[in-house]
Amino acid sequence: MDKKVGNLLSQVRESKPLVHHITNYVTVNDCANITLGIGASPVMADAIEEAADIAAISNAVVLNIGTLNERTVKSMIAAGRSANAKGIPVVFDPVGAGASKFRSDAASLLIDQIKLTVLRGNISEMKCMAGLKGATKGVDASEGDAANIDDAGQIAKGLAKKLGCIVVISGATDTVSNGAEIIFVENGHPMLGGLTGTGCMASSLIGSFCGASKGRAFDAAVSAMLCMGVAGELAYEKAGRFGGGSFHAALHDAVSLMDAQTLEGLAKYREA
Amino acid sequence: MDKKVGNLLSQVRESKPLVHHITNYVTVNDCANITLGIGASPVMADAIEEAADIAAISNAVVLNIGTLNERTVKSMIAAGRSANAKGIPVVFDPVGAGASKFRSDAASLLIDQIKLTVLRGNISEMKCMAGLKGATKGVDASEGDAANIDDAGQIAKGLAKKLGCIVVISGATDTVSNGAEIIFVENGHPMLGGLTGTGCMASSLIGSFCGASKGRAFDAAVSAMLCMGVAGELAYEKAGRFGGGSFHAALHDAVSLMDAQTLEGLAKYREA
Amino acid sequence: MDKKVGNLLSQVRESKPLVHHITNYVTVNDCANITLGIGASPVMADAIEEAADIAAISNAVVLNIGTLNERTVKSMIAAGRSANAKGIPVVFDPVGAGASKFRSDAASLLIDQIKLTVLRGNISEMKCMAGLKGATKGVDASEGDAANIDDAGQIAKGLAKKLGCIVVISGATDTVSNGAEIIFVENGHPMLGGLTGTGCMASSLIGSFCGASKGRAFDAAVSAMLCMGVAGELAYEKAGRFGGGSFHAALHDAVSLMDAQTLEGLAKYREA
Repeated sequence: MDKKVGNLLSQVRESKPLVHHITNYVTVNDCANITLGIGASPVMADAIEEAADIAAISNAVVLNIGTLNERTVKSMIAAGRSANAKGIPVVFDPVGAGASKFRSDAASLLIDQIKLTVLRGNISEMKCMAGLKGATKGVDASEGDAANIDDAGQIAKGLAKKLGCIVVISGATDTVSNGAEIIFVENGHPMLGGLTGTGCMASSLIGSFCGASKGRAFDAAVSAMLCMGVAGELAYEKAGRFGGGSFHAALHDAVSLMDAQTLEGLAKYREA
Repeated sequence: MDKKVGNLLSQVRESKPLVHHITNYVTVNDCANITLGIGASPVMADAIEEAADIAAISNAVVLNIGTLNERTVKSMIAAGRSANAKGIPVVFDPVGAGASKFRSDAASLLIDQIKLTVLRGNISEMKCMAGLKGATKGVDASEGDAANIDDAGQIAKGLAKKLGCIVVISGATDTVSNGAEIIFVENGHPMLGGLTGTGCMASSLIGSFCGASKGRAFDAAVSAMLCMGVAGELAYEKAGRFGGGSFHAALHDAVSLMDAQTLEGLAKYREA
Repeated sequence: MDKKVGNLLSQVRESKPLVHHITNYVTVNDCANITLGIGASPVMADAIEEAADIAAISNAVVLNIGTLNERTVKSMIAAGRSANAKGIPVVFDPVGAGASKFRSDAASLLIDQIKLTVLRGNISEMKCMAGLKGATKGVDASEGDAANIDDAGQIAKGLAKKLGCIVVISGATDTVSNGAEIIFVENGHPMLGGLTGTGCMASSLIGSFCGASKGRAFDAAVSAMLCMGVAGELAYEKAGRFGGGSFHAALHDAVSLMDAQTLEGLAKYREA
């Protein structure tokens, strides 16, 4: 892994990658704003008539099943395949996989039809994707699934090897694996769990970083998770005591002001 | 009614109920964040393929027709029936009922097909639900419908008796009735009317409180409305002078920081 | 053009026009809140079963194809025709026109089927609408399209004449033409470009102003763009140094607190 974790951030700000999202309507505004905040350019387009075309002109595609339906799953497949055909990175966020048969089936279908670059979710969703018995509570990880971090490392590594992509498991400590190496990202703050969409936003950051550094998805995923975690810490310091609404604004503040030096100075991670 | 209005808030924070929403895309982010802010866990899922399944694992279901369409009305019926079958509380927010025939018909259909626990809306929407002549202005109450508060009490009481559920009529003073008793909630601030989604958020809080106190829907509805009103007052004091955006953030701040003691200290209500 | 640009703002606050939106789910919450902030009343309704009915009771209709699909394009046509039949102003925001064939075709269809009052977009979108070769980057103007301002004036004037409506081209300087006159609005701040939805919000303001001043669409469009630009400057002064999240809240603050005197004192525009 590249130790200069700030370099990719600078690349995002310089190259302004176009990041196509097919995502949920709950957190989509935050996803667009965090994509702009980090220096990339978001476009949200979920109609089947244009999903493949928009994906083809983008630098990365982010697929998120938070509020999936039959129509948008088809568009996700079209966008993903279009990206695959052009070698454009695809990030998949299987929100709530395990919470209903429909979600789990859709997530399986997408993994089957699309070659992923990065798969990101919480421990319950990732257990579901790995075919392990989990218990997703709506769209949040269930407490029973909060495995110890070494288990998370093994799940991420095994799933990364199986799917041939980078796997990110978000949690108090984030786990990132390329199937060979495992990195634990130790930045972040519990208040991120009290805000909707911090997982979705992390996926948008991963898409932004991947879009600016094709072929370096492992570094991109680690840098993006460090960026999210550091932003959470800075937001807490600035506004945590004022409550959840102020923390929300401060999180966007921190991402929009993040530079390579700040990120490198505060980044905390270790190899397994 | 339970005079210890803070008790239910503590129960929400302890039991973290899962609250399934099928709601509009205008205010859904605020609904998710206020649900998290009060200590519950939101899940938004509107596909017909999973609506019943997600409802069945939830502690409460909130249905909101703010941006309804043919597809989501079917999902609302499926979710509501699934909740009914399991005795899970259902909150219905008939946004804009009376503004178009489609909305009024959909609201009637939902009331016909689903046994509600709580029905919440503004005076124009509630007049429509009661079969009275009103004049909904888009999604806001019309000025002509701003009946005196005793009329609101009688409408709430009559509708609650007819439907066998709790009825909440939001306004400068909120009215809550179980068909026998009427409670007037006198907290709140006019700036809440200048922010979109404060009605939807109130319904999310009602869902959160109902999910944490099954069988006590009257107390839950009163506590939730007190909570929203007190949060509005605190947000105004903290940030009202700075404008609408700051007030918006401060409202989420206030809900996320609300505790039983604060709520009880500031709660203002009276029995009719 | 009316030099008393604050007069229309006062009319919006006094008459509280109902502004029907069929818009994208990315920025819809901001559109609703800015509509409320300026003193109008938003209603979002995209079902084909009610689109025409809601349009018919509104004071203005805003159509925005940011996340268009087959279903909502039909509803936009129904709403637009209903508004046309009643002489209600229609504002059209062809988000991303030029980025995909589907978007460009939908934009052309809407212009063909509906008599517009105001058409607003960035330079790439407006070049597409004018049949000129542009290069929309997702939903943002491409750098190559950033024509000099005199070119923008001629494009706006030509398109306005051709379509028989007011044309607004947003950018560092905004261009407004009625086909005869051209006004350049010089308010604004670069941070507006780092926030999603500032274009959509500008269209909501145009809708609000048109709804309060039927038959004066040129003045309404200029006043709305001045209002957005001045709000951006005030938001930057108040909170720009704190980052993107604080700027976002401050933008809503500035709109909600805007009065005729502030707007007139800070407005900067010139005739071509």
